[in-house]
Amino acid sequence: MIYFDNAATTRPYDEVLRTYHEVATKIFGNPSSLHNLGSNATRILEASRKQVANLLGVAPSEIFFTSGGTESDNWALKGTAFEKEQYGKHIIVSAIEHPAVKESAKWLSEHGFAVDYAPVDSRGFVDVEALAKLIKSETILVSVMAVNNEIGSIQPISEISELLADKPTITFHVDAVQAIGKIPVSHYLTSRVDLASFSAHKFHGVRGVGILYKKEGKRISSLLTGGGQESDLRSTTENVAGIAASARALRMTLDKEALALPKIAKMKQVIQEALEEFDGVQLFTEEEGFAPNIITFGIRGVRGEVVVHAFEEHAIYISTTSACSSKAGKPAGTLIAMGVPQKEAQTAVRISLDDDNDMSQVEQFLTIFKHVYAKTQKVRR
Amino acid sequence: MIYFDNAATTRPYDEVLRTYHEVATKIFGNPSSLHNLGSNATRILEASRKQVANLLGVAPSEIFFTSGGTESDNWALKGTAFEKEQYGKHIIVSAIEHPAVKESAKWLSEHGFAVDYAPVDSRGFVDVEALAKLIKSETILVSVMAVNNEIGSIQPISEISELLADKPTITFHVDAVQAIGKIPVSHYLTSRVDLASFSAHKFHGVRGVGILYKKEGKRISSLLTGGGQESDLRSTTENVAGIAASARALRMTLDKEALALPKIAKMKQVIQEALEEFDGVQLFTEEEGFAPNIITFGIRGVRGEVVVHAFEEHAIYISTTSACSSKAGKPAGTLIAMGVPQKEAQTAVRISLDDDNDMSQVEQFLTIFKHVYAKTQKVRR
Repeated sequence: MIYFDNAATTRPYDEVLRTYHEVATKIFGNPSSLHNLGSNATRILEASRKQVANLLGVAPSEIFFTSGGTESDNWALKGTAFEKEQYGKHIIVSAIEHPAVKESAKWLSEHGFAVDYAPVDSRGFVDVEALAKLIKSETILVSVMAVNNEIGSIQPISEISELLADKPTITFHVDAVQAIGKIPVSHYLTSRVDLASFSAHKFHGVRGVGILYKKEGKRISSLLTGGGQESDLRSTTENVAGIAASARALRMTLDKEALALPKIAKMKQVIQEALEEFDGVQLFTEEEGFAPNIITFGIRGVRGEVVVHAFEEHAIYISTTSACSSKAGKPAGTLIAMGVPQKEAQTAVRISLDDDNDMSQVEQFLTIFKHVYAKTQKVRR
Repeated sequence: MIYFDNAATTRPYDEVLRTYHEVATKIFGNPSSLHNLGSNATRILEASRKQVANLLGVAPSEIFFTSGGTESDNWALKGTAFEKEQYGKHIIVSAIEHPAVKESAKWLSEHGFAVDYAPVDSRGFVDVEALAKLIKSETILVSVMAVNNEIGSIQPISEISELLADKPTITFHVDAVQAIGKIPVSHYLTSRVDLASFSAHKFHGVRGVGILYKKEGKRISSLLTGGGQESDLRSTTENVAGIAASARALRMTLDKEALALPKIAKMKQVIQEALEEFDGVQLFTEEEGFAPNIITFGIRGVRGEVVVHAFEEHAIYISTTSACSSKAGKPAGTLIAMGVPQKEAQTAVRISLDDDNDMSQVEQFLTIFKHVYAKTQKVRR
């Protein structure tokens, strides 16, 4: 099996599942309990928070655990909107956000808020000048992802940070779900960023654990109200085992980044260069300015799902751009926003690499690719 | 160690953690992925949904997985409020709800909704007649828990169901977090109940998994919007391992209910009867009409946390009524709502039993209780 769908989800590391099991069996107390089973659980929870904070270079009090990237995004958008509605009801998100952001913006637009979408250029980068023109005095939130999930384009978070430098009343949220472990933290956690979302299962952690970074002092309304956990901002009995396991996954991922990223980039380069040789292949990704792990391409005239299933027959797993849109059969929203015609967008498939992959898999993939390609060309003739 | 704090959280069953590990390692695909790693994950997810539905006697399409009881409660209240706001903005919750419901109601009251609290009698039961008088033409939601988390009083869900029988426009939500596995399903899932909340870690499942039962056809706005999972009503990459593990926990719990509940009830009876012998003990629980697993009492004049810590020294773990209010040092909200004076409410501690406990633990507890009691009486003199 060759698993090239790591942007959809990753295999949890064995060590991560060991931590999960150890904490779930030995530290099963409720952190809210007064007795020492509770304080033991609190200790593990706070140690995990500190570890995540250290890895991201922020304060532990700025780290909040959620149920995943989707909740972090929903909380960032809706929590900011409800917190700041008396100051303004206008929000800006980019045209290529993940559905967790886009649908949250849409939900808000149905509940009294106005939403503008910052356009992207033909390569998939947010147009910062166009974004600047959308800003009004009532704008309370700007949300732009760090790395696009469908093509891996690295968004101009630094430029947007500069743009917002003299606009302190605007909350700046960055969906960093596809960025963490793929590009340096400094690229997406600038000092101007107020909120950032992360998802553990994208970096070999467990499902059901997300993180929201919230800059000290930034106010946000709770999405989950209740027992007062997470500094009274996100209630629910804490998933201590999942959190400890995910903190470990983050440490493991970032610890090996220096070796893993060049390796992944090299694999991408080999695949990109090989695919460029095929006349019928359209590449949507580049090397410069793009995450090192994502290659998105299409075989002209062939729908993406046909290509996905052709590779599946050889136990090679790739994806039609994003897992979240693939079942709905929708063409990649990012490509459409880039101005790619619908027919071309429908051909797109995404390869997403990981340190778990290696060059022999790349070679196998390319061998199979020749067969798949030849077959599609026959069908077309 | 004697763990008598099972209403706060339970130890996950070994079999449950085995299922978790097996699914997390072998079925790690994203259910939204088009390839067969995705469909394998979808199969496990849907099998788990079917199992939970069968156990509750409802349809699989009526079962939604969430991140826990708190999210289920938040979703039920806020989702209903936002879905139905054009029809009315009045909601009723009981005065003894868990903070997940109460704080959600409070949040809604700060965002344009009116909230009334249905009072309880001096024994801790919702006054259905008083609740009836609170209903207005603008009432869109009634939320009453099935079993109170602080004293275990079983609420009159059947009577409220009858009251609401001819009021189909009112959504009826039941927080059944403390009821499942403790009283028969028919007591809290009447045919009139539209929504019901559950939390896996209360029945030996894993943290971070909850369930919302939503009756077929009942409309609710999403709380987590995004990739369109859970019939487009609750987005996020599904925690398949946690869900499969929790479905197994529910099956195990309900399978042994017929033997476990009489055993638990017997342990409660022995403790209640023993405690009644002490002049300085005030019992807040009874046998008839109360869940079989919860005993709440106070030693007159002694704050609950003092008693909790006294038992902790002997590795016996009990709680100051609810885990969620214990750290805040607040007296039990339920007792205050019952009209118990604040000074008496502050004495309350909760024992919550489980099938994992046995009569020898009860005997040890009672032996230690005599010492703890004697010590407090000395201090008071």
